[in-house]
Amino acid sequence: MTELKWVQHVTLTPPTLQDNTADADRLIQALKSRLKTDAIDADLSLLRQLPERLRDWEYSARCVLFKDRTRWLLLGVSDARDPAPAAGLAVDLGTTRVVLRLISLADGSELAESAFDNPQIAVGPDVLTRIHHADQPGGLDELATLIISGMNRETAALCQTAGIRPEDIYLVSVAGNTAMTHLFLGLNPRWIIREPYIPVVNRPGLMRAAELGIAVNPQARILVFPNIGSYFGGDLIAGILYSGLDRRETPAILVDVGTNAEVVLGDRDWLIACAGAAGPALEGGVTRMGMNAGPGVIDKVQIDPDTREFDLRTIGGQPPRGICGSGLIDLAAQLFLSGMIDIRGKLIPATAGQRLKESNNLQHLIVVPAAGSATGEDLTITQADLDSLIRSKAAMYTILETITTTVGMTPQDLTTFYVAGTFGSFINPESAIAIGMLPDLPLTSYQVLGNSSLGGATMALTRPDIMADMDRIRDRITYLELNVNQDFMNRFSAAKFLPHTNPSLFPSVPAWN
Amino acid sequence: MTELKWVQHVTLTPPTLQDNTADADRLIQALKSRLKTDAIDADLSLLRQLPERLRDWEYSARCVLFKDRTRWLLLGVSDARDPAPAAGLAVDLGTTRVVLRLISLADGSELAESAFDNPQIAVGPDVLTRIHHADQPGGLDELATLIISGMNRETAALCQTAGIRPEDIYLVSVAGNTAMTHLFLGLNPRWIIREPYIPVVNRPGLMRAAELGIAVNPQARILVFPNIGSYFGGDLIAGILYSGLDRRETPAILVDVGTNAEVVLGDRDWLIACAGAAGPALEGGVTRMGMNAGPGVIDKVQIDPDTREFDLRTIGGQPPRGICGSGLIDLAAQLFLSGMIDIRGKLIPATAGQRLKESNNLQHLIVVPAAGSATGEDLTITQADLDSLIRSKAAMYTILETITTTVGMTPQDLTTFYVAGTFGSFINPESAIAIGMLPDLPLTSYQVLGNSSLGGATMALTRPDIMADMDRIRDRITYLELNVNQDFMNRFSAAKFLPHTNPSLFPSVPAWN
Repeated sequence: MTELKWVQHVTLTPPTLQDNTADADRLIQALKSRLKTDAIDADLSLLRQLPERLRDWEYSARCVLFKDRTRWLLLGVSDARDPAPAAGLAVDLGTTRVVLRLISLADGSELAESAFDNPQIAVGPDVLTRIHHADQPGGLDELATLIISGMNRETAALCQTAGIRPEDIYLVSVAGNTAMTHLFLGLNPRWIIREPYIPVVNRPGLMRAAELGIAVNPQARILVFPNIGSYFGGDLIAGILYSGLDRRETPAILVDVGTNAEVVLGDRDWLIACAGAAGPALEGGVTRMGMNAGPGVIDKVQIDPDTREFDLRTIGGQPPRGICGSGLIDLAAQLFLSGMIDIRGKLIPATAGQRLKESNNLQHLIVVPAAGSATGEDLTITQADLDSLIRSKAAMYTILETITTTVGMTPQDLTTFYVAGTFGSFINPESAIAIGMLPDLPLTSYQVLGNSSLGGATMALTRPDIMADMDRIRDRITYLELNVNQDFMNRFSAAKFLPHTNPSLFPSVPAWN
Repeated sequence: MTELKWVQHVTLTPPTLQDNTADADRLIQALKSRLKTDAIDADLSLLRQLPERLRDWEYSARCVLFKDRTRWLLLGVSDARDPAPAAGLAVDLGTTRVVLRLISLADGSELAESAFDNPQIAVGPDVLTRIHHADQPGGLDELATLIISGMNRETAALCQTAGIRPEDIYLVSVAGNTAMTHLFLGLNPRWIIREPYIPVVNRPGLMRAAELGIAVNPQARILVFPNIGSYFGGDLIAGILYSGLDRRETPAILVDVGTNAEVVLGDRDWLIACAGAAGPALEGGVTRMGMNAGPGVIDKVQIDPDTREFDLRTIGGQPPRGICGSGLIDLAAQLFLSGMIDIRGKLIPATAGQRLKESNNLQHLIVVPAAGSATGEDLTITQADLDSLIRSKAAMYTILETITTTVGMTPQDLTTFYVAGTFGSFINPESAIAIGMLPDLPLTSYQVLGNSSLGGATMALTRPDIMADMDRIRDRITYLELNVNQDFMNRFSAAKFLPHTNPSLFPSVPAWN
């Protein structure tokens, strides 16, 4: 808990014939001298009630402020004895889930947190469907209204939980990918998906809550994280902010693993970023038994190398009904280490034989026999599922190899490896190393950040010069276009083996024989 | 005509895969480099249509900007081939009359001008009545709506005259006294008239047109002149700006003569101001035959010193029906110079006899006999009217003496004497000197500024750093409280003679005998 500058208590010298400075100027002058600044602006509507109130409050007021790129803004004035906290709201604006966190603007302490499904899912689950829908008549308004009214509803509920009113929220920070940010702002993202892929805006900056229809204090400002372009959004700038990558003395890497792998490498002097399709196999939903994390979903797999018996852990300890991405990585690693798949990821009948069955002309590996599953049917993965996983992990490793090579490093030179994103939080690095998806670094090098987008959005509410910091991070990033050239393809081919065609890159992984 | 910075034509390099900067950032970057600034902000609503428009316009745009205290604001973007001018509106917000002037923001040239009666007159002709009315339930809203809707109506008509649309107006500057400014902004001026006389705000700064309900371009900004306090308003700051007092190397004085005399003395290093009641006799409406300037109103009086025949000039040359303030000053001067009143301003029966009559127990001087007047009745002034005029002129001179004395000068040391205000424009300095209202300076010292409030408001639309200039002028003014102490009373008593008890102060005025 550090005291933030956003909330200031001032007691003014009441006016006299000798000092007839106006009420507004008296207050602003006191704040200027307190904050050592020349520039504080206040909206007219805030001044309307000021004279009566200052006199009622005997000239003691609590002021809520925020500093934008060039000046301080006075956002709220209330009785110094007002017991209601001045709150800030951090928003992780995900395509699928939206997470809200309420904090105190006085000391940065967390007041409450909640999450809800992005109501735009009603229009389409993925970004592309929504972008196309936004181009239909009324579509953009519909999408903007869905997210804004969903946020308003959830914010009201969250405030109730925290025992405050939405009017107590003076600052909202929003971190989302470029398309979600555009839809949130009511900006048509149509050119984002058309060559040469141009957003409407890179630096949306600061908006008024009223301008966007956000039901918090009418004076509140909405701070929206900037983006680099279509593929590198505000959620990742928030991640960089949260990881502290931009302030490190030595280089580190930040990886947000998902359908897209977003990667930033750098330190306080330079930042390089790229994004690439790591393949859907890394998230639930592609393999037959794949699903998002939830009760009864397998998230950990252990296979006895001698008996080849499976030891499965499910979320909540309930009978298994599917497997999530991190479980799948575990499964592949264990199949490989127990000799049930070869270095190309192919199922080996000699060792996996008793678990193999054929159905619909596809070879299946039975992970959970019907008798033990929640569905009453065999839970299986196919050779095609494994092939898809291997392409995904190879893409991931190739991206890491490409970005490190660009700055004259190798993945093995990395000493700090930040793993961001909900999915990333559940990956077992040991398994990811065993299949050659992540480089073979000491396990202590891996640092799980969790929801770094929310973390960055929260930090934005408490950092003194956040708008300058945001701009500085954004402007220092060199974005590396991952052109799929021959070099990339060669690296990709080499990475399609378990763990790699060059096993010396993965010394900790037992040699397969 | 100088080219102003507010209108910028830019042609952008269209985006490519290698340069995928967002549309908004591309435009703002071009403007930043053109204007050599780091800080340009644009409202979200301006960005919504930008992508389609930039493509339609082949990336050539005309931008309208304004610079506030800390940053540039992008107010409008249109097709570079747009033939509509970008306009600015200067407003002299008078208690009685409101004057509007439309100019081009590209080169400062005047497009059209008009004036209308302040519709708040319906509530009350004077400031005090309106301030009390504002304190009644709904009164403040009523007064604000009266002036805003009146302005909107007149602006629409003015635009029609000039062949433009109200949406072509991007900047409005408003100069008015402190109370009128408060009512315009919807701020309750109740504390302005209660000790210790505190305005709501001294530096209203920049507002959005939409915030005030002003029907011009929705992005337009409204620049409101600051005030010092209750008695020194934005109209006078505008006058200082217009006169250039704040940039002079040698001191000069600026006097706005009316019911209140507002005076500023100084140069580029210092400014001292005061305001005092010069007495209502200086404006029409108090003497029996007094009235505001208009057709048939006497504005010039000549009395033959030998024959004591009156030579009267009326506005429009029509039969006389009254006398305005400047006419009254002329009349008093001529009565004195022709020996019809003495140095105390008393009518002398020996010389004025044939024009004197008694009516209602008051002695009247017949200025126009019934036969020659438009009303069919004698137009007369009474001894009481003359006494009142002499108190007014004495107050005026005493104010000038007091303010010059404060800085170690005398009224006679002044070399440049700016006379502002509509009334001031009509005063004949020779007559004002003859009665000792204005100091006995060479006539070339007197410079008539006309409507300096409108002049300053116009200048505000074209000055590059106007907000800083406004603040600087405001902050450098030392306001002198005219406490009516013994010194003041002594000076006032001495000034109640024609031209003065000390005739050596008025060497050009023939000695009375």
